[in-house]
Amino acid sequence: MMNVTEAIGYVAATLTTVSFLPQAILTIKTRDTSSLSLSMYSIFTLGVLCWLFYGLYIADTAIIAANAITFILAGIILVYKIYNILTRKN
Amino acid sequence: MMNVTEAIGYVAATLTTVSFLPQAILTIKTRDTSSLSLSMYSIFTLGVLCWLFYGLYIADTAIIAANAITFILAGIILVYKIYNILTRKN
Repeated sequence: MMNVTEAIGYVAATLTTVSFLPQAILTIKTRDTSSLSLSMYSIFTLGVLCWLFYGLYIADTAIIAANAITFILAGIILVYKIYNILTRKN
Repeated sequence: MMNVTEAIGYVAATLTTVSFLPQAILTIKTRDTSSLSLSMYSIFTLGVLCWLFYGLYIADTAIIAANAITFILAGIILVYKIYNILTRKN
């Protein structure tokens, strides 16, 4: 059976992972990235990719799954931001 | 000495933690939160707080430090977003 500490860890991982879903949906719907930081999404997406490699190295399914999902969501937001910069929308 | 796997973990933790600094700076400077998702920052800040409790439970200094910093940065952004909603700026 799962103990309290493990449960808090799973809740934490779930919340920080799913949090990027409403941001990705908002960005896709509005295409507005004016107040999003390019530096943040560049550094964050790279960091999540490192977490993914870390999970693969230690063969931890939870870390792999959480960061694969976050990588896709943060990556979508980053692509929108770069597209808007290149097309001078912001 | 640190092995490659540990090093990747530290790089990952550093990148995902510091990434919120440029977003916090941008938000403080421009006060613009129009394209930031309230749901994202609410869920994310709560998730980071859970990570902080998790770190305290397992007494892991790296998890405590990284999530304390991220909690402050994400919390600042969340406060700006809520302020702007309450004052109907966006």
